[in-house]
Amino acid sequence: MAEARFTFGLWTVGNPGRDPFGEPTRPPRDPVDTVHRLAEIGAWGVSLHDDDLVPYGTPPADRERIIERFARALGDTGLGVGMATTNLFTHPAFKDGAFTSGDRRVRRAAIGKAMTSIDLGARLGAEVYVFWGGREGTEVGVAKDPRDALERYREAIDVLGDYVHDQGYDLPFAIEPKPNEPRGDLWLPTVGHALHFITTLQRPEMVGVNPEAAHETMAGLSFHQGVGQALWAGKLFHIDLNAQRIGRYDQDFRFGAEDLKEAFMLVRLLERAGYQGPRHFDAHAYRNEDEEGVWEFARGCIRSYRALAEKAAHFDSLAEVQEALHDAGTDDLGAATVAASDPPDALKAEATRLDELARRGYGNERLDQLVVDVLLGLR
Amino acid sequence: MAEARFTFGLWTVGNPGRDPFGEPTRPPRDPVDTVHRLAEIGAWGVSLHDDDLVPYGTPPADRERIIERFARALGDTGLGVGMATTNLFTHPAFKDGAFTSGDRRVRRAAIGKAMTSIDLGARLGAEVYVFWGGREGTEVGVAKDPRDALERYREAIDVLGDYVHDQGYDLPFAIEPKPNEPRGDLWLPTVGHALHFITTLQRPEMVGVNPEAAHETMAGLSFHQGVGQALWAGKLFHIDLNAQRIGRYDQDFRFGAEDLKEAFMLVRLLERAGYQGPRHFDAHAYRNEDEEGVWEFARGCIRSYRALAEKAAHFDSLAEVQEALHDAGTDDLGAATVAASDPPDALKAEATRLDELARRGYGNERLDQLVVDVLLGLR
Amino acid sequence: MAEARFTFGLWTVGNPGRDPFGEPTRPPRDPVDTVHRLAEIGAWGVSLHDDDLVPYGTPPADRERIIERFARALGDTGLGVGMATTNLFTHPAFKDGAFTSGDRRVRRAAIGKAMTSIDLGARLGAEVYVFWGGREGTEVGVAKDPRDALERYREAIDVLGDYVHDQGYDLPFAIEPKPNEPRGDLWLPTVGHALHFITTLQRPEMVGVNPEAAHETMAGLSFHQGVGQALWAGKLFHIDLNAQRIGRYDQDFRFGAEDLKEAFMLVRLLERAGYQGPRHFDAHAYRNEDEEGVWEFARGCIRSYRALAEKAAHFDSLAEVQEALHDAGTDDLGAATVAASDPPDALKAEATRLDELARRGYGNERLDQLVVDVLLGLR
Amino acid sequence: MAEARFTFGLWTVGNPGRDPFGEPTRPPRDPVDTVHRLAEIGAWGVSLHDDDLVPYGTPPADRERIIERFARALGDTGLGVGMATTNLFTHPAFKDGAFTSGDRRVRRAAIGKAMTSIDLGARLGAEVYVFWGGREGTEVGVAKDPRDALERYREAIDVLGDYVHDQGYDLPFAIEPKPNEPRGDLWLPTVGHALHFITTLQRPEMVGVNPEAAHETMAGLSFHQGVGQALWAGKLFHIDLNAQRIGRYDQDFRFGAEDLKEAFMLVRLLERAGYQGPRHFDAHAYRNEDEEGVWEFARGCIRSYRALAEKAAHFDSLAEVQEALHDAGTDDLGAATVAASDPPDALKAEATRLDELARRGYGNERLDQLVVDVLLGLR
Repeated sequence: MAEARFTFGLWTVGNPGRDPFGEPTRPPRDPVDTVHRLAEIGAWGVSLHDDDLVPYGTPPADRERIIERFARALGDTGLGVGMATTNLFTHPAFKDGAFTSGDRRVRRAAIGKAMTSIDLGARLGAEVYVFWGGREGTEVGVAKDPRDALERYREAIDVLGDYVHDQGYDLPFAIEPKPNEPRGDLWLPTVGHALHFITTLQRPEMVGVNPEAAHETMAGLSFHQGVGQALWAGKLFHIDLNAQRIGRYDQDFRFGAEDLKEAFMLVRLLERAGYQGPRHFDAHAYRNEDEEGVWEFARGCIRSYRALAEKAAHFDSLAEVQEALHDAGTDDLGAATVAASDPPDALKAEATRLDELARRGYGNERLDQLVVDVLLGLR
Repeated sequence: MAEARFTFGLWTVGNPGRDPFGEPTRPPRDPVDTVHRLAEIGAWGVSLHDDDLVPYGTPPADRERIIERFARALGDTGLGVGMATTNLFTHPAFKDGAFTSGDRRVRRAAIGKAMTSIDLGARLGAEVYVFWGGREGTEVGVAKDPRDALERYREAIDVLGDYVHDQGYDLPFAIEPKPNEPRGDLWLPTVGHALHFITTLQRPEMVGVNPEAAHETMAGLSFHQGVGQALWAGKLFHIDLNAQRIGRYDQDFRFGAEDLKEAFMLVRLLERAGYQGPRHFDAHAYRNEDEEGVWEFARGCIRSYRALAEKAAHFDSLAEVQEALHDAGTDDLGAATVAASDPPDALKAEATRLDELARRGYGNERLDQLVVDVLLGLR
Repeated sequence: MAEARFTFGLWTVGNPGRDPFGEPTRPPRDPVDTVHRLAEIGAWGVSLHDDDLVPYGTPPADRERIIERFARALGDTGLGVGMATTNLFTHPAFKDGAFTSGDRRVRRAAIGKAMTSIDLGARLGAEVYVFWGGREGTEVGVAKDPRDALERYREAIDVLGDYVHDQGYDLPFAIEPKPNEPRGDLWLPTVGHALHFITTLQRPEMVGVNPEAAHETMAGLSFHQGVGQALWAGKLFHIDLNAQRIGRYDQDFRFGAEDLKEAFMLVRLLERAGYQGPRHFDAHAYRNEDEEGVWEFARGCIRSYRALAEKAAHFDSLAEVQEALHDAGTDDLGAATVAASDPPDALKAEATRLDELARRGYGNERLDQLVVDVLLGLR
Repeated sequence: MAEARFTFGLWTVGNPGRDPFGEPTRPPRDPVDTVHRLAEIGAWGVSLHDDDLVPYGTPPADRERIIERFARALGDTGLGVGMATTNLFTHPAFKDGAFTSGDRRVRRAAIGKAMTSIDLGARLGAEVYVFWGGREGTEVGVAKDPRDALERYREAIDVLGDYVHDQGYDLPFAIEPKPNEPRGDLWLPTVGHALHFITTLQRPEMVGVNPEAAHETMAGLSFHQGVGQALWAGKLFHIDLNAQRIGRYDQDFRFGAEDLKEAFMLVRLLERAGYQGPRHFDAHAYRNEDEEGVWEFARGCIRSYRALAEKAAHFDSLAEVQEALHDAGTDDLGAATVAASDPPDALKAEATRLDELARRGYGNERLDQLVVDVLLGLR
């Protein structure tokens, strides 16, 4: 197993600790310093919104200087750019949405901002370009016909896909779903909705998903199952790792900080599936942390991922696990159910024997306890 | 606006009031009697699982008699069959899944049972055939690779699609998603996951979704937005109406019993979109009801739907609503954002004017209060 | 029924529309202007945190001037102060808690800030003093022993109760629970936890609760039932009205914007119980609103409360409702179950007749549909 | 640390795998056989509902024989009875509630059934008598005034407290809260509500709480914090251990199967607090298990508890943990905030120095990662 490539967003270790009820607890970070610090802790790369690097409204000359200085830091440290994205949520102009705002001028500006930001991503060598529609939703259901909103969303991605194609960039897109927050209900609330949306695009082949652990978890969905559907569809283009409790505000905790079993199943799935993209941590330190705590946080993310990947490999190497997986029918599920030659009548006849088929157990308690044992280091 | 067609499942008004902690509180109902009672309260039709009509294990001769008697009742009352479906969850054999069981013999039996059940549905003239994968999931993530499970699910629907085609039935399929219960996590947890799954089938054109209000609501998702995505995709083949609180056990309350605003937005969307399928109530009376309460329940479902449909039409007829919708940009959102002739540089330039675009408000408080006013009969 | 007294927090209509992902969309408001505007829309009074009126760090001379000007506005408009409270969450010093910070110096400062703020509340004639422990919690369970945290919380309220007593203020306290946000888990997460906490205080008679609709709803609890327990205990000292969807970030929507049936039951309970305190709206306008939308929001809160209060009275006046309530056993539940003279053996004997007792229904479907009918203006 | 005493309910290992959508998958178990099997796997004792041992309606002679046989099995194996309780939820008579039914005859029968069941519990030497009000709630808020319901609940517990006193039993009560399911909303939804309720009783000293992990977790509350408040109040009289995901149907999974970090914090709290009662597993095997799986399930509960207790002790023994706890202010929180001699003015003055107090971090990322490290066996 090749070593996983770990990346952090500039906005993650740079998170100043502001929340809806409180002012920042940590000073802003210089992106160049962040690059150097990330290199020290063993990250492979960095990711960024346009505004993380170049604050909105920066004059062109300053902009160029900032980008060059940042590119130099990347060169000096050898860090790559895992992904780039556009900030279409912080500025008040996007208060009613960006690609799906009720104001066409805002929608156009959002597309324009994304184009400029795509240029930046391409210039910095980003592997993938992410779209998180944080403002693409509403609190007031009648204000927007969902069909119109999806149509505008599709139009925007299609226009930007054409743009990337016309510019000759090699920059696939990844759409990041989220159920709610900061809007009441967002379009494309889950991995499933995003996967379907992609099939409606003009260039579906260049667009995948960027699932985020916290987002699926907010809706109480199994993250590893959602990632599984994306992998099954060949659409896992990027992934956001963090931790979250179900049914709460977006917490973006350190990877591994919540639900270790789900984290284990996710890591095991990624590693077994041969996912090649970056393991991207979209999380931040608790608000009561200082600078030192930020780096404890970042190291913890990597540490827990590595530990879980090792445990996943160890788990699969155990004879008792192999036996339990067999008892659970895990391999059986990999085999086709019906042969081309099976006549319907034969299958109908088999349906009369349910009572016999009900007798066996599937050994799931033992299997799940083996997961717990391996997680706790008991085996 | 043509009068909506209302249908009820045999299992809904026939629900005996058993729950995980208690025994039935109402006696079983004769399906034929149910048909007559539904006709009396103004239902257009009925829907059924195979086992609702013909209990599993019924000898063939009895089976035929039961079906004929039921068909006669349909003829006598003029009731139609809105949809038919297979019970792949009650029998213990399906305890580990049906199409995605870890035991291939169970998977085959499930397909066979569905075939026999499809024959029944076709015979009774069902408009659509529904698949709810209530046991298609797991509590133990490692027991099943999600990719294998989805592959088996797809195989089963493909085999059954071929079967319908080969038999010459005119019977489209509708897949009904659910996030959890009775399994820990189900494959195809939301409308989005199901819509995407359909795009992977061999006969995607014959398969749509059957969203259920309670199921999307359990995960805290907006039901009308999910239905909106299905309509947008031309995939709303059937719909299950009921009521539910977020983050709870599957409640299947009387339509209108929870979240009147969401119910209003749903009805308004269905009516405006010209949805032609049955308005199917998949709900049941509270467990502390007797027979009389069951019919109060059924009448209440219809009554609330009709009232909300009238309110939706009234809402849209009000001048102040039209004004508020305009202020919210509702019509603006229906217009294309970008013209073919728009050069990227122009769009990029527009992105520098965000401060101007931030000034306007969208009148959403007024608009939402108009919804409340209309709901409460204040306007 | 006397007209309800409506109050708004300075921070509610003054909310600038900042959220975790976006900058403010509305300018700050002058508290004096707010007082005049609230008077215009028919509010009875206003409520405030210390820092809402006098920003933290204001020099003493400026402070005095600000307070005098504000008091004058109250006098000019005739508005009262429904409640006052301390901001113990915005300043970074409170990042680990206020009364339960892990730093004793912070805990002492928090108590000191509350004392100064209590002086202000008493001076302005506040009816009640509220404690919302927004930072009193943790994301890291091992960091704080819950017993120590509750002990420190109790100590702080006891010290402040003594202070109020020693100063001779007539200022009861009301504790406001919340399950989470901005901290991972808060001490005193629900009305129940707060009601119990109060029984452990040195001056329990001067302390009640201030339940907030959004907070109980976040945890999926029935708000009117929680308020019911507070009323039952004689501890409903204040109430925060707004709207919220279950299992989401703290939304603080306009009263009536979500779950009209629950809102109806709450209003009916408050009116029937003769609750005399202010109906306090702790909510804010959607972020995509401008100034005009803020006042639409405020008027909507009052309008919906009044409409629901009228509907509650109308509901109870209907003969069919009285009949349905009787059938449901609503009045029966008000009667004692056991007489002093009932011998245990008689009760034991009655327990052998459950089968007979199981036969009746409780007419709950009809009763609940009557609620829906009245809400929708159908009766 | 003395070895914890583990107990299982007869209904837990005896759970037949019935659920709302499916028939039983396992045969009923003979309680005497269960006692012997529990002894084999190292359980200290057993717990029971009246009907678990003696089915409702059993003739007196059979009843006596069943009890004697069971008592003999206890004697033979040396197993104790951790707790006893009354089944007030399965029989259809309780469909509208037991102590809070809208039918006084049902309420009386419920009290009578509880008396007979208390006699049984006392006879078998139960340590504590539990009340779980599974049917004490409603789906229809207007059907019951919450104040009346709580009054009837209180009356019932008071009557039964008198009964225990009059009979001379040494049998304290423990009230088990739950937010919902099988009713829409239950009275006493959380540990907090139950703790408060107890303070209103005539014999508060004989009544504590029986918190259940799954129940608090359904509402998204921190279980160990709720248990902490109960311990703080001296009211943890019993505890139900299992596992559950937030915002779902009542899952009652094997202890340790979900949220290992929360389970760790709970076990650490119980062990540190010197809780002496049984560690009671109120859980059951997955429905797709056979008999063998049931005992895997039971052994897994014990195994995970023991492993977590060892890890808790190990965690606290580590120097780096002690240091991190100190940095987090864990010990500081144990110290009084204010001295009797502190003048208010001094505290007010300290409140002007918040900026200084904001500088420090609390090392929570490091501390939480230490928990993860210990859980994963990395330290």
